[in-house]
Amino acid sequence: MERPRTPPSGDSTGLLDPTDWEAFRALAHRAVDEALDDLATVRERPVWRPLPDELPAQFHAPLPRAPQGADAAYADYRQWVAPWQMGNTHPRFWSWYMGAGTPFGALADFLAAALNPNMGGGNHVANHVEAQVLDWCKEIVGLPLESGGLLVSGASMANFVGLAVARNAVEGVDLRTDGVQALPARTSWYASSEVHSCVQKALELLGLGSRALRKVPVDAEFRIDLEALEAMIAADRAAGLEPRCVIGNAGTINTGSVDDLAGLAAICRREGLWFHVDGAIGAVLALSPAHRHLVAGIEQADSIAIDLHKWLQVPFEAGCALVRDRQRHRSTFALTPEYLEKTERGLASGPLWFSEYGLQLSRGFRALKVWLSFKEHGLDRYAELIDRNIRHARALAALVEAAPDLELMAPVVINIVCLRFNPGGLDDQRLNALNEELLIRLHESGIAAPSYTTLGGRYCLRAAIANHRTDERDLRTAVDAIQRIGAELIRG
Amino acid sequence: MERPRTPPSGDSTGLLDPTDWEAFRALAHRAVDEALDDLATVRERPVWRPLPDELPAQFHAPLPRAPQGADAAYADYRQWVAPWQMGNTHPRFWSWYMGAGTPFGALADFLAAALNPNMGGGNHVANHVEAQVLDWCKEIVGLPLESGGLLVSGASMANFVGLAVARNAVEGVDLRTDGVQALPARTSWYASSEVHSCVQKALELLGLGSRALRKVPVDAEFRIDLEALEAMIAADRAAGLEPRCVIGNAGTINTGSVDDLAGLAAICRREGLWFHVDGAIGAVLALSPAHRHLVAGIEQADSIAIDLHKWLQVPFEAGCALVRDRQRHRSTFALTPEYLEKTERGLASGPLWFSEYGLQLSRGFRALKVWLSFKEHGLDRYAELIDRNIRHARALAALVEAAPDLELMAPVVINIVCLRFNPGGLDDQRLNALNEELLIRLHESGIAAPSYTTLGGRYCLRAAIANHRTDERDLRTAVDAIQRIGAELIRG
Repeated sequence: MERPRTPPSGDSTGLLDPTDWEAFRALAHRAVDEALDDLATVRERPVWRPLPDELPAQFHAPLPRAPQGADAAYADYRQWVAPWQMGNTHPRFWSWYMGAGTPFGALADFLAAALNPNMGGGNHVANHVEAQVLDWCKEIVGLPLESGGLLVSGASMANFVGLAVARNAVEGVDLRTDGVQALPARTSWYASSEVHSCVQKALELLGLGSRALRKVPVDAEFRIDLEALEAMIAADRAAGLEPRCVIGNAGTINTGSVDDLAGLAAICRREGLWFHVDGAIGAVLALSPAHRHLVAGIEQADSIAIDLHKWLQVPFEAGCALVRDRQRHRSTFALTPEYLEKTERGLASGPLWFSEYGLQLSRGFRALKVWLSFKEHGLDRYAELIDRNIRHARALAALVEAAPDLELMAPVVINIVCLRFNPGGLDDQRLNALNEELLIRLHESGIAAPSYTTLGGRYCLRAAIANHRTDERDLRTAVDAIQRIGAELIRG
Repeated sequence: MERPRTPPSGDSTGLLDPTDWEAFRALAHRAVDEALDDLATVRERPVWRPLPDELPAQFHAPLPRAPQGADAAYADYRQWVAPWQMGNTHPRFWSWYMGAGTPFGALADFLAAALNPNMGGGNHVANHVEAQVLDWCKEIVGLPLESGGLLVSGASMANFVGLAVARNAVEGVDLRTDGVQALPARTSWYASSEVHSCVQKALELLGLGSRALRKVPVDAEFRIDLEALEAMIAADRAAGLEPRCVIGNAGTINTGSVDDLAGLAAICRREGLWFHVDGAIGAVLALSPAHRHLVAGIEQADSIAIDLHKWLQVPFEAGCALVRDRQRHRSTFALTPEYLEKTERGLASGPLWFSEYGLQLSRGFRALKVWLSFKEHGLDRYAELIDRNIRHARALAALVEAAPDLELMAPVVINIVCLRFNPGGLDDQRLNALNEELLIRLHESGIAAPSYTTLGGRYCLRAAIANHRTDERDLRTAVDAIQRIGAELIRG
């Protein structure tokens, strides 16, 4: 390795810069090595392990007044933090719905923080990086490049952005000035009973109230019932309510089910409703030639929420909000006080002021990790990952169906598998308790970490395989552990 | 330097991991070296320079389908991104109000992304790191440790969180269920005319409408007029409106002015109003024994927004929302669907579910850079930085006052200096145009980057010195450049 250059006597050194740049450089290299060693060997360790009882007490010291120095602070990190991970970097972590991250993605976050631009606006190149990433996201889902867009913390915020624009997209009322109290009627927002809770949270925060969210029944494959939706819209209109928006699920959190998006788009067109798609999980199915038919119709949405830190494995946080009507998007958020007036030239010029498209004014350079990751891998490789994880899910489902003591609890549409241990002869109540304890013991074993949900009152283990480190071996390992722990519990 | 260990044959390697871990390790070391070289020598380069005309076109390539590899992607970053920075790492960047970042803060973002936990909840140690950072923030401003808190993207979101809790903190109406339309009257929210635009944006998004924000006049030092506030509250009550909240400024964006927070707290107590403090800029004054008197009363707030990526130099994004009443904080945001039910043990257990205190479900490990930075430097050093930057601002103001062709435009309370070039004999309109062009040429010169604002219709150059790399030399350098460019413009 080339010997690092010595900077000229730290002339630029600030009060919070290293007093000894070479010593800091050595620390940074060590930190990189240790982090990469951890990632390259993650398979050898347990997915998760319980925190030692004495650990939380380490985090109750008062505000440190005296300096400890970077080396000692890093040593504390290695001793008290790094070993007790959540586990989602591990090949057998399938809880909730998360990505595993990548080494280059992590390095990109270092580069972004070292450059440390503020992506609220101004004339600097980082804004062009974000604009390109947004164009790429539009291309993935088939929205026109002239659509509005914004990188955000994740799908909770991306859904919030889309629904905020939808809320304000009303003629005759100036929502920004006069607020929700100026609306002549209560609005109705439709989504299936499988909709993610962040949609409810968004409607509550937007001042519309959770009762504005009308939950539409689903079919046996957990897809929204289009006829029931149309009946609810008609009933609401008859009751003097104002139907405003339909939220389609492209990949539900419980089972990975995908609503008939083209069907929803047609209803929205006919009824004059805003069509929002929560694509946190499944919008990226559009990347895969083998699976993009599942999300056909997403390109007709008025707004879309996408997560990049889930299936695309970008480190947290990275989500994307897209809004077809860029002007409506901007007019929901733009505010230009005197201290943010743009100039014709200089630092405060430029066409890209992302703070006008969302809640944040100061914004970090999250675009860089997406940009570098997309360039590193190319999107065909992400499509390969999506196809592979779906194969994994089907293979896991096949193992479950072949096992006499396991039960598949929902159809596997994409990469989410709901199952339970069911040795026969037990009612749902006992099976629920049994599987709940089984899951905890599975976590404690460190072998695999699915999470759980409840479908029709029945507790399920739930494996969401959005993980680029998972391979076929891992599925068998997890099934074996589930069967073994289940049998142990039965034997008592 | 110790030779890096070779991991065992990349057995954990996932589809998006390096195919050659040693080659990637070499790239990571090179990236660290180049970023540290850039930071250690930043003073030698211009603060900012215009983007070459051909640069934006580099960012219009379509979605990359084929892999480019990490090395080539990084080379593109070095060629097209790294040289065209915003400039806020530089000692003479004083635009808007930003921190300069630190090397250890950037390294911490790498570590956070390599670990890649999801800080929405679960039983893993990273949540304890965030809890400790929140406790430290409470200690800084003097809120009780049992208060609610959340690390967020920045003060826009921190203000949104505080105001959302304030909105919902009403008896007799279930805002979450029934929405703003269920309120019996319109609410009024009070802040000085100097309040940051993000407060208006928050009230708009919360469905209250910008007309709910009552802007109270300020005195000659840009502090809220308490008598005018009381008169407005009385007038609103008489008009059937419902006064709900007062927002105090701890450091205004235009001039750094600090409202009489103790006076506002007393009014809020008397009137039964929620007391929120926007401390994005100035809450951290509480760290400095010499300056904490400026924010006396902040400890009486019901909610406080703090930025950590401004004066405390943590890389973007890092803000903090604190809410005295933890239960009200949680009850504004908590939602627990079946797929997020907590367990008694295992990965899904634990007491710290931060997703219940804000909009986001998935959350990154931004706590780590704050935790490591606070430990590295100790808070006394941040107090020293605050005192030093205030000294810088006073020294700059003294240089301005001593110069016959410069004019100080507002009192310097903390670290913000508003000035203009005024050679005499020109009216405000011509001075405005002159100073506007002067600022752009100053940016283009690369010598210094203040920003601008308008005070009473008069365009000002505005230096917000929240920069740990600034030293005394820089002030004189900037003043010289302003005088020189101004004189050149006058000569035509």
